[in-house]
Amino acid sequence: MRLGLIGFGKTGKEVASEVIKDKSCSLEWVLRKSTDLSGKYASQILGHESDQGRIYSTQDLDLDTFYRMHPVDVILDFSTPDFVDTHEYACRHGIRIVSAISSYDERHLAKFKHLGSHTAVLYSPNITLGVNFLIEASKLLQRIVPHADIEIVEEHFRNKKEVSGTAVRIAQNLGLEEDQHINSVRVGGIVGRHEVIFGLPNQTIRLVHESISRSAFGQGAIYAAKWLKNKPKGMYTMEQVLNFEGTLKNGLISTG
Amino acid sequence: MRLGLIGFGKTGKEVASEVIKDKSCSLEWVLRKSTDLSGKYASQILGHESDQGRIYSTQDLDLDTFYRMHPVDVILDFSTPDFVDTHEYACRHGIRIVSAISSYDERHLAKFKHLGSHTAVLYSPNITLGVNFLIEASKLLQRIVPHADIEIVEEHFRNKKEVSGTAVRIAQNLGLEEDQHINSVRVGGIVGRHEVIFGLPNQTIRLVHESISRSAFGQGAIYAAKWLKNKPKGMYTMEQVLNFEGTLKNGLISTG
Amino acid sequence: MRLGLIGFGKTGKEVASEVIKDKSCSLEWVLRKSTDLSGKYASQILGHESDQGRIYSTQDLDLDTFYRMHPVDVILDFSTPDFVDTHEYACRHGIRIVSAISSYDERHLAKFKHLGSHTAVLYSPNITLGVNFLIEASKLLQRIVPHADIEIVEEHFRNKKEVSGTAVRIAQNLGLEEDQHINSVRVGGIVGRHEVIFGLPNQTIRLVHESISRSAFGQGAIYAAKWLKNKPKGMYTMEQVLNFEGTLKNGLISTG
Amino acid sequence: MRLGLIGFGKTGKEVASEVIKDKSCSLEWVLRKSTDLSGKYASQILGHESDQGRIYSTQDLDLDTFYRMHPVDVILDFSTPDFVDTHEYACRHGIRIVSAISSYDERHLAKFKHLGSHTAVLYSPNITLGVNFLIEASKLLQRIVPHADIEIVEEHFRNKKEVSGTAVRIAQNLGLEEDQHINSVRVGGIVGRHEVIFGLPNQTIRLVHESISRSAFGQGAIYAAKWLKNKPKGMYTMEQVLNFEGTLKNGLISTG
Repeated sequence: MRLGLIGFGKTGKEVASEVIKDKSCSLEWVLRKSTDLSGKYASQILGHESDQGRIYSTQDLDLDTFYRMHPVDVILDFSTPDFVDTHEYACRHGIRIVSAISSYDERHLAKFKHLGSHTAVLYSPNITLGVNFLIEASKLLQRIVPHADIEIVEEHFRNKKEVSGTAVRIAQNLGLEEDQHINSVRVGGIVGRHEVIFGLPNQTIRLVHESISRSAFGQGAIYAAKWLKNKPKGMYTMEQVLNFEGTLKNGLISTG
Repeated sequence: MRLGLIGFGKTGKEVASEVIKDKSCSLEWVLRKSTDLSGKYASQILGHESDQGRIYSTQDLDLDTFYRMHPVDVILDFSTPDFVDTHEYACRHGIRIVSAISSYDERHLAKFKHLGSHTAVLYSPNITLGVNFLIEASKLLQRIVPHADIEIVEEHFRNKKEVSGTAVRIAQNLGLEEDQHINSVRVGGIVGRHEVIFGLPNQTIRLVHESISRSAFGQGAIYAAKWLKNKPKGMYTMEQVLNFEGTLKNGLISTG
Repeated sequence: MRLGLIGFGKTGKEVASEVIKDKSCSLEWVLRKSTDLSGKYASQILGHESDQGRIYSTQDLDLDTFYRMHPVDVILDFSTPDFVDTHEYACRHGIRIVSAISSYDERHLAKFKHLGSHTAVLYSPNITLGVNFLIEASKLLQRIVPHADIEIVEEHFRNKKEVSGTAVRIAQNLGLEEDQHINSVRVGGIVGRHEVIFGLPNQTIRLVHESISRSAFGQGAIYAAKWLKNKPKGMYTMEQVLNFEGTLKNGLISTG
Repeated sequence: MRLGLIGFGKTGKEVASEVIKDKSCSLEWVLRKSTDLSGKYASQILGHESDQGRIYSTQDLDLDTFYRMHPVDVILDFSTPDFVDTHEYACRHGIRIVSAISSYDERHLAKFKHLGSHTAVLYSPNITLGVNFLIEASKLLQRIVPHADIEIVEEHFRNKKEVSGTAVRIAQNLGLEEDQHINSVRVGGIVGRHEVIFGLPNQTIRLVHESISRSAFGQGAIYAAKWLKNKPKGMYTMEQVLNFEGTLKNGLISTG
């Protein structure tokens, strides 16, 4: 599978590393705004021997021509929200898109959704498998024990100012008011920990996700891209990738 | 719903309490081996005002006649494994059976299964909703990330000698060798805690169930009985009660 | 050691049970406001065979005379704040006092402190050994890593309205603003869980206390009473009972 | 404070990074067996701008002369056990030594101890502050509640073959048989987690240490070096650095 990566920040680099390590994928190119690293290879910057992921700057090229000259199966977008406005060029060339940008507002989201009428696109603000399992399993448990009390505890490094977007998404999925049911702990260097606590009179159930490194985003994005590769046009979500219902029916899924 | 309870030990008493507290159920009678409490009411022994759950001894009666004279919708069996040999009398009178006896061997299990050709019966060695959710959710997660490493940690009070039967059941459901993947912690007065740890390279997912009191068994049994009440004959399990697939399809389930 | 218990509510009963079970103690009497159970024995109400802890009502007696006629070594006070106003009668007869009332205000506290000029008295709003260890160990760790970020998470049953008094006490001991550093989780039937999280850039330390039952209060009170029995007059705290410094010097303490 | 680092493997590099970042320290040099990086600067290899920590190979130099020409206050030894045999050269020049090598056998340990008759040396197989706090706090709690049951759970990445040396050290400090009281969980990419569980009949206390990255070793080593800098000759341990007793007496310790 040929992948193109947009964005080469902290998370973008981790994603590039994961794509390079995965033998069933090739990193065709990396696209970013800055011209700093143009012409270099992501693989070499990240300490790999091979030449993968040549870096291009959007300032130096015409996107329509670029996508025609450097076709890929799926784009992984880890850049900034406004990049959504240019995704129509990718659509024209039949490229599928996985977007993992956490800060889309309603306009961005509407725009991204619209792309689904041209090609298969998938959006998830937290694209790790673990967090998405946490959300789906929590929804399921809530249906089984609707009278349970539910609280969310999220822990992150001290400098993370805002409430965790993932925690907000969990709350929304469970119909909980964010102000009242999310407890935010900010200490030291915790990478990221989300816990959903279900309290019943005589038992407590805890679903916990702990992030070890940002590479999990890369793995989740690749997993999503593989899934998206053969889908018809439309807008998809990680909920559909996890596909609890189908998984229950079919048993083992190959993860390549 | 009219319920009969077999067994009035430590757990049986907790189950009786839960049935008495649940306004949609009535505890018609309690059946036990010993004649000690015969003629008394379970409700009064447990500190309730009402007269519910008159206690009978199996030594004083003929089961066939008893079930005819004191019909119930569902029997909750919290007694001993060998009681299974007498359940055919209940079947004759169309009574459904929920058995929560943890120490059935293969013979007992075969016998119980056979009852399913006459009436609707359900067997679960740990009938709490939480533990059964833990098992089903773990199976689901294993299918989504089959390459994850899985370990089970179970914690109980110091005097619990054997490995937790629930942990063994979790291991069996996940295809894990019990000897190698169950870690047993025995300290102080911990009522019961089961944790299933899924390790991925960059993230860890923990599913945890903590027991607060044995009343959870009663609540699970009632939940199962309500579910079983309108089912055709057959042998059922808690997996079917939780019914992840149906829950996913239908959304909210009423828990009465 | 002869003990007298004041208060026979939910916690008082658990304390009485623990005293009765401890062979190095005798429960001489139980004192309470209500006359309901007067003349009965706490031991029998709690299901023990022996006759221990005859129950008296303060409405029926003169405290000065009562203490003279029924002397004890130590009083365990699990009643209401205002009972502090009558403790001078106990002092007159050289009786030591352990008070575990969580809701003393400043007036009560000043009054209790004053008793220390007559006899040995000890006050602790949460008298379990575990919680007091948690506080002392947290203070110690804060001194070793003063730059660590600290957060408190406390979990209790859904109907507990107010913030945990124990969590408030932990915050005060660590110089943390209660409003900002205590996270309160209210779900289901959790008896009580307190976690103090120390975050450093590359490591996290968690000190956790989980309550299983209220009997822990009884055990802590007995532990404190044994410690107080031979102390000179003065006002003492659980911090002194735990005595980290002396424990470090002397090694094993007998808890006999 | 002038520091020299021996060893530049995975952990050695993290230690070098921490020394470079700490403005009260200078990394004078790095010593290693291999000649690969000789002449380069550790700071540049690690992505810093400055020129700190020139790398030398032991194959190219005479240690006695080297230490005379490049004096430091404290050596941090993160190399291999046998390097202990050459530490006498450092002693001759009055250099103090902090050794954090986890795999010293008895011979190495005896040899290292002997160095203490010439200069101030400190040895700790796990030099993080957190783990050493865990050990000291556990010993303290064991003294306060000697009847508590104690179990250790340690979690690490799947490829860690042996039982955690830190867990073994905890067990030894608490007088627990390693075979029976250490539970080892090996899953995914967990950096390192140690939990000591104290079980009492009605309460459970958990002391937990979670490693986020190996930088914690560097911070612990620097902390130890600062402490060791003004000490008279002798062999010291992290227990003395943490110094619970002194900390209790003196309150706040400056951590520079």
